[in-house]
Amino acid sequence: MKYAGFSRRTLLGGAGAGLAAGAAAGAFGRAVAVPGQPHQVSLGAARVDFHGPHQAGIVQPPQARIELLALDLAPGATRQAVQELFKRWTRTAGDMALGEPADSHENQIALDAGPSSLTVTVGLGATFFDKLGLAAHRPPQLAPLPDFPQDAIDRSRSDGDLLLQVCADDALVAYHALRVLQQLAAGTAGTRWQMSGFSRSPGATAQPRTGRNLMGQVDGTNNPKPTDPDFAAKVFATGPDWLAGGSYLVFRRIRMLLDNWEQLPTDRQERIVGRRKSDGAPLSGGTETTPVDLGKQDPDGSLAVPADAHVRIAAPASNGGAAMLRRGFSYSDGVRPDGAPDAGLLFLAFQADPAHGFVPVQRSLSRGDGLTTFLRHEASGLYAVLPGVPDGGYLGQALLES
Amino acid sequence: MKYAGFSRRTLLGGAGAGLAAGAAAGAFGRAVAVPGQPHQVSLGAARVDFHGPHQAGIVQPPQARIELLALDLAPGATRQAVQELFKRWTRTAGDMALGEPADSHENQIALDAGPSSLTVTVGLGATFFDKLGLAAHRPPQLAPLPDFPQDAIDRSRSDGDLLLQVCADDALVAYHALRVLQQLAAGTAGTRWQMSGFSRSPGATAQPRTGRNLMGQVDGTNNPKPTDPDFAAKVFATGPDWLAGGSYLVFRRIRMLLDNWEQLPTDRQERIVGRRKSDGAPLSGGTETTPVDLGKQDPDGSLAVPADAHVRIAAPASNGGAAMLRRGFSYSDGVRPDGAPDAGLLFLAFQADPAHGFVPVQRSLSRGDGLTTFLRHEASGLYAVLPGVPDGGYLGQALLES
Ligand code: HEM
Ligand code: HEM
Repeated sequence: MKYAGFSRRTLLGGAGAGLAAGAAAGAFGRAVAVPGQPHQVSLGAARVDFHGPHQAGIVQPPQARIELLALDLAPGATRQAVQELFKRWTRTAGDMALGEPADSHENQIALDAGPSSLTVTVGLGATFFDKLGLAAHRPPQLAPLPDFPQDAIDRSRSDGDLLLQVCADDALVAYHALRVLQQLAAGTAGTRWQMSGFSRSPGATAQPRTGRNLMGQVDGTNNPKPTDPDFAAKVFATGPDWLAGGSYLVFRRIRMLLDNWEQLPTDRQERIVGRRKSDGAPLSGGTETTPVDLGKQDPDGSLAVPADAHVRIAAPASNGGAAMLRRGFSYSDGVRPDGAPDAGLLFLAFQADPAHGFVPVQRSLSRGDGLTTFLRHEASGLYAVLPGVPDGGYLGQALLES
Repeated sequence: MKYAGFSRRTLLGGAGAGLAAGAAAGAFGRAVAVPGQPHQVSLGAARVDFHGPHQAGIVQPPQARIELLALDLAPGATRQAVQELFKRWTRTAGDMALGEPADSHENQIALDAGPSSLTVTVGLGATFFDKLGLAAHRPPQLAPLPDFPQDAIDRSRSDGDLLLQVCADDALVAYHALRVLQQLAAGTAGTRWQMSGFSRSPGATAQPRTGRNLMGQVDGTNNPKPTDPDFAAKVFATGPDWLAGGSYLVFRRIRMLLDNWEQLPTDRQERIVGRRKSDGAPLSGGTETTPVDLGKQDPDGSLAVPADAHVRIAAPASNGGAAMLRRGFSYSDGVRPDGAPDAGLLFLAFQADPAHGFVPVQRSLSRGDGLTTFLRHEASGLYAVLPGVPDGGYLGQALLES
C-alpha cells in the first residue's frame, strides 16, 4: 500500500453491490458528516468497490467532482485491441478504486490521496458496434435519440464510441484517473471530447441532504431509490444477454440562462418547478419527501402544482410510467462570447430503456414545461453502460467474447 | 442563522489576521483530517473571517475550488458608483464568509451548506485608475508586465479593471458567491473573463500536506511561511498609503503540455524540477522540507540540482532575493481543437512588489529553465490587492475617499 496513513484496515471493508463505504456511511456509500458527531471516515479513505453486479458510479449519489471523457476508436482498431484495452481499464480502475497506484502510466497526481470514493463507469455508443463488426449485437435501444424542439446540439461535443464517467470527492484524484485511463487507450481509442463538473462536497452541509443545482433548486428528490422494490427494473437493463445488469445512460449538456432565471422572483421560480426553493417541498404541501399531489387545488381552484410545472410534466404519471435515475453534476466553464455564463447541468440519467425513460419525458418537457425557456441543450449522448465486472472478469467480456 | 445544524457556537471562534479556523485546525486555517483522529471540524462549518488587516484568500492554503472573475467598469461608471459597489461587496462577502445568506440577489445555490472556508479577495487592475480619474494614485508597480519570451497571451482572457478571487472547499458555495457578487456589480462593472480551478479537498490525504499539480509534482514547498520573520515584507505592500497591508497579485494561466510531459521517465521529470516526485524532497538530499543545497555535487562532479532545474532558476538566490507567495490552482477545461488537454495551472502569486517578485523570476525561467518547454502562458494579469477591511470599513475606502 502506498498511501501512508490509509492501511487496508482503516479502509472500510464490506462487499456487495459496489457499496463498500455504504455500510458505515449511510444508504448510498458516501462518507458524510453527521451533525453533533465528528466525521467518522475521512473523505480520502472512503472507497467504492469497482467489482459487483453493476458498475460503480450509478447508484452512488454524485461525488464532488466528475470528469466525462468520450473517445472514438482509432481507425482500424480491432476487437482484440479493444479487449486488451478493456482488460487494462478493468485492472487499473479496480486498483485505483482501492487507492493503489496505476501500475503503468502513473502520473502521480493522486499519490498522497486516498481513493476518495473514486468510481469509473464505462459506456458504449452506437458507433462502437459498427466499427468493430458487432452491429448484430447492437441493442435497438441505442438508436439515435430523436431531435427535440429547442435542441441546439453541438455534435463535436456529443456521442462517441466510448464514454468514461470518472467521479471522486477530490478533483485531483478524478483527474489522475482520467489521464491514466486516457493514456491506457493510446493507439486504440482517442479523445473525442471532455467535460468537467461538480456537486456538493461531503461535509459541506451539516447533514447529508439532496444536492442543489446552479438554479438553486434542490435537485434529485424524486429519483428512484435503491431500496424501492422496482428500482432495478427502472434502472438496469435486462437484455441483450451481454448487457444484463448494465444500463442506458443519457447525457445532455444543458446550459442554464442564469441571467434571465435569477431575475425572476422566488415564487415565480417555484411555480416553474412545482417545488419550494428553500427546502424542495412540493407546492402541494408537506416536506421534501412528501409525494407530490398533482391533483391538489388551491382555494381559488387553481392547481397547486401548475399545469406547466417541471415536476408535473416530468412525472412518471404524465409519461406512461417512464422513469430514470438522474445523477447530474453542475458545470461552470467561464463566460460565453455573448457575456452570459457558460454554466448549467451535465444531465446524466441511467435507465433500463431510454424509450421508457428519457425520450418520452424529454419529449413532454421540450413541448413546453416552464423550465424549458431557461435551458439550452447543447450536447447529447446515449451509451450502453456495461454490466458490472465479477472478480477475475473484465469490462465487456460477454460482448467481446461472443 | 439559516444553516440548520451550524449554530454560531459550532462555528470556530477566534479573530486575528483573518484566520478564524486557524486556531483549531493548524497553521493555515483549514479544517483537516488528522490520521487516527476523526475530523473535528466539518468542512462546511469552517470559516475564514472576512475582516482583518489583510484580505482573506492570501495566507490560507488553496481551498478545493476557485472561481476567478475579472470585470471591467461600465462606460461612465463614477467613483461614487464604485464606492457603493465596494460597500455592497464588503457587506455581502462578510455575510457569506459567516455562512449568512446574501441579503439581495440570493440565488440559494448554497442554501444548505456552511461557509466551507469561503474567501473573497478583490484586486484592481491598472486600467481601474485611469477610468476613475485616479491615475495619480496608481502605483508604479502596476505598470504592465513585460512580454516574456514564449508568451502566448490571449488579452481577452487577461487583465481587467477588477479581479475577484472566490475560493471555498465546496464548488457550489464558491459559485453561489461568484454569482451574487457578479450581480451586485450590475450597472457598474461587467464580466470580462471567468475561469475555474481546483486544489486538494480537505481530508483527501491522511495528513495535511503540500498539494500536487497536474504534472504530479508536490507544489508549494518553498513558499514563504506566515511564521517567517520576513513573510510580511515579501508578501504585503507597504505603500502607497491606501495600499498598505495589501499586495500585488500576478495571475498567469499556464497550460501544461501533459501529453509530452507524461512521456518522460520519472527521473528526467525530477531533474527538470530539481525535486523528487514521490515526496518533493530536493535532489540535493533530505526530505521535502530540507533546504535545497544548490551547490551540492554528485560523486561524478555534476550538480545534484541541475543547472536548468526549475527550483534553481526560480530560487530567490538566483534572482536577487526575489520572493512571492504562490497560491495556484489546477484547471481542466476539456480538450483543445488539436486534441491536447486544455489543462494546467492557474498560477497566482502574491508579493510586496512584482519588480522584486514575479518579474525577475519569470524573466529567468522564460530564458530557459527545464520546465518552460512543457508550458504555455496563455493569459496574464497584474492587480493591486486591496488591504484588509476593519470592522465598519469597506474595501478600497482609503483610495476612494482620498
Ligand atoms: C437543467 C435542466 C434541469 C433542471 C434544472 C431540472 C430540475 C429539476 C428539479 C429541481 C426537480 C425536482 C426535484 C427532484 O425530484 O429531483 C426535477 C425533477 C425531475 N426532473 Fe428535472 N431538471 C432538468 C432537466 C431534466 C431533464 C432533461 C429531464 C428528463 C428528460 C428531467 C427529468 C426529471 C424528472 C423525471 C423529475 C422527477 C419528477 C417527479 O417524478 O417528481 N429533468 N428536475
Ligand atoms: C505550470 C507552471 C509551474 C509549475 C508546474 C511549477 C512547479 C514548481 C514546483 C514543483 C516547485 C518545487 C516545489 C515548491 O517549492 O513549490 C516550484 C518551485 C518554485 N516555483 Fe514554480 N512552477 C510553475 C511556474 C512558476 C512560475 C511562473 C513562477 C514564477 C515566475 C514559479 C516560481 C517558483 C518559485 C519561486 C519556486 C520556489 C523555488 C525555491 O526557492 O526553491 N513557478 N515550482
